[in-house]
Amino acid sequence: MPFDFETVLNRRHTNAVKWDVADDELPMWVADMDFETAPVIKQALIKRAQFGVFGYEEVPMAYYEAVADWWATEHNFRPQIEWLMFCTGVVPAISSIVRKMTAAGDNVLVQAPVYNIFYHSIENNGRHTLSSDLVARDASYAIDWDDLTKKLADPLTTMMILCNPQNPIGVVWSRATLQRLGELCLKYHVLVVADEIHCDLTLNGNAYTPFSSLTAPVAHNSISCISPSKTFNVAALHAATLIIPDAHVRALVSRGINNDELAEPNSFAIPASIAAYTEGHDWVAALRTKLAANQRQVQTYLTAELPQVKLVEAQATYLLWLDVSQVTTDSAALAAFIRQRTGLFLSAGDVYRGDGNRFLRLNVACPTTTLTDGLARLKAGITAYQQVQA
Amino acid sequence: MPFDFETVLNRRHTNAVKWDVADDELPMWVADMDFETAPVIKQALIKRAQFGVFGYEEVPMAYYEAVADWWATEHNFRPQIEWLMFCTGVVPAISSIVRKMTAAGDNVLVQAPVYNIFYHSIENNGRHTLSSDLVARDASYAIDWDDLTKKLADPLTTMMILCNPQNPIGVVWSRATLQRLGELCLKYHVLVVADEIHCDLTLNGNAYTPFSSLTAPVAHNSISCISPSKTFNVAALHAATLIIPDAHVRALVSRGINNDELAEPNSFAIPASIAAYTEGHDWVAALRTKLAANQRQVQTYLTAELPQVKLVEAQATYLLWLDVSQVTTDSAALAAFIRQRTGLFLSAGDVYRGDGNRFLRLNVACPTTTLTDGLARLKAGITAYQQVQA
Repeated sequence: MPFDFETVLNRRHTNAVKWDVADDELPMWVADMDFETAPVIKQALIKRAQFGVFGYEEVPMAYYEAVADWWATEHNFRPQIEWLMFCTGVVPAISSIVRKMTAAGDNVLVQAPVYNIFYHSIENNGRHTLSSDLVARDASYAIDWDDLTKKLADPLTTMMILCNPQNPIGVVWSRATLQRLGELCLKYHVLVVADEIHCDLTLNGNAYTPFSSLTAPVAHNSISCISPSKTFNVAALHAATLIIPDAHVRALVSRGINNDELAEPNSFAIPASIAAYTEGHDWVAALRTKLAANQRQVQTYLTAELPQVKLVEAQATYLLWLDVSQVTTDSAALAAFIRQRTGLFLSAGDVYRGDGNRFLRLNVACPTTTLTDGLARLKAGITAYQQVQA
Repeated sequence: MPFDFETVLNRRHTNAVKWDVADDELPMWVADMDFETAPVIKQALIKRAQFGVFGYEEVPMAYYEAVADWWATEHNFRPQIEWLMFCTGVVPAISSIVRKMTAAGDNVLVQAPVYNIFYHSIENNGRHTLSSDLVARDASYAIDWDDLTKKLADPLTTMMILCNPQNPIGVVWSRATLQRLGELCLKYHVLVVADEIHCDLTLNGNAYTPFSSLTAPVAHNSISCISPSKTFNVAALHAATLIIPDAHVRALVSRGINNDELAEPNSFAIPASIAAYTEGHDWVAALRTKLAANQRQVQTYLTAELPQVKLVEAQATYLLWLDVSQVTTDSAALAAFIRQRTGLFLSAGDVYRGDGNRFLRLNVACPTTTLTDGLARLKAGITAYQQVQA
């Protein structure tokens, strides 16, 4: 079945956060795709709306079976049913887990540049962010193991939030890397929270390793967060799942999730998730092909038209990490200039910390014509910026 | 336009919490109605599902205008637009407010018997419940003002959670009572959280007074919680609104609601709420008539068939508070017996604390045939219980 990733949708004035922009602006920032969701999900939502009764909803076994089956088929690993816990979102869950599983004043380790909302979950709850910054190397990034080990060994460090695939740099961590990292965390009594929200959007044959599929001691020291939200473009469905192999950790997190009122699904979360995970395989396969093609379009364009901007190859996600260090070390100023001058609204890299001040993040989950428009604006903006600076 | 409150819906095996019961059981417990929601809401939900894109959603001004207009039309008081704050639910908001606006170890005052989840919001967050129990008097309840004053004056008491209309006793507090209570809270620096979730379901001409409509100093010491969830039977829509007249209180609560990830609407919450509040007046008027009729049916039945059970007249809500003190002072045992013997699943009163051990709570939001079935089971259960006890 062919799927449509080329129709340009009009999302202006639809209460979409992404499209709350001026009429001549083009938003390519927040992780939200300009595609309709999978037809099977849309049909499930219409059917649920037609049912007409929207009282308190519970999570049926069929939901957990659908999640486990999806992981088995897509990722060659079937989590045990009892490891799974529904929650209303990955970010709310991470915040709740930080509050429940660490103490105020503790360090939570991250690897900058990384998803900026992690910092909110840590710092707004009175914990400290401790980053073992990833090291840029040959248009990719590497872990500084000595630095990481030292920071994990700090007794104040009690949790690590891992991002795999990593937003915004697009790395899919290898099984060997994850195992090594997991063993270090185990050794130093650091609980791993693995944000795997982009795991279904691997590109060009790169394979994602579920953290919960690592050796038992390592997996039992972890909580993984998954969701259909990025995969199927349903962020406002408010559906996610936690994978928690260890029964004691699961019992504690369950109390936190319930106490923080993140345990109850809305009327639409369950039927749409089941439709996604049981009937959405073909759509996601087609989406991955489209996202890979869009990344190639960007690479080709930059090489030909904008060689001063270097693409960090994304092994996953539709969020491209553009190295603008030949243009500026103040990507926030550059992003603001591009938006003001051309209307292209992308994310400045500085909010992800680490070396993000030398990067922009570009969301390429859009039809070809939109991406072409965005790239032309990017070139116009950067060229003008360089002229102004010169 | 006539609305249908008589069709018996089949909600078994639909993931409904209420109907997760054995096939021969009849659930009349949790506050969830066995009616379809208003047709205008159903149509809005179908339309939203058909749109097909479900990315991050924001709250438009039209939402707040719809809320304010509804209050103006239905309750003769239009809150100022800037007082209003969307959140994903009343209970999540109350828990968040308890965490943000009181300190661990503080007392939060309630008036038992009252909605049992208040106790969770208080105690699971490390605060203490301090109840100024309502006093049963002539098949109704009264406030013990001396006791209330003493408990509000305790410097450890920093918040009061008020329930108006009061679940489960069905009282609609008068303006004079609310003003007196609000002045006491102001005097003793006790912040008022008013749960007004049942406010649209007043019966027989009883009028609800919004706490935010009281004199300015009293209103500015309050946070009111409202929602379409009870009114339109959309608990799993996950939509609610806080009314916070004071700018400083509003700023603090906003940080709590955002930090606790309760600020972002799902794809369906906003369009359904707007439909409800702009086009739902006739449906709610018809619903109120039906609920009043159902209460009359219960009263008539009890008088004729089960005089040992006394109905506390509900001025609002579809939750009837049945005095079974002539039968038992262990309503939990009685409820369990009735369920085991007849399949009728209602709520034991003890979870609401206060004198709840002498009461049962019966949900009468259902078609006439269902209510008739429930009443017959109630009689059979109570009669059998008395025979067993004799």
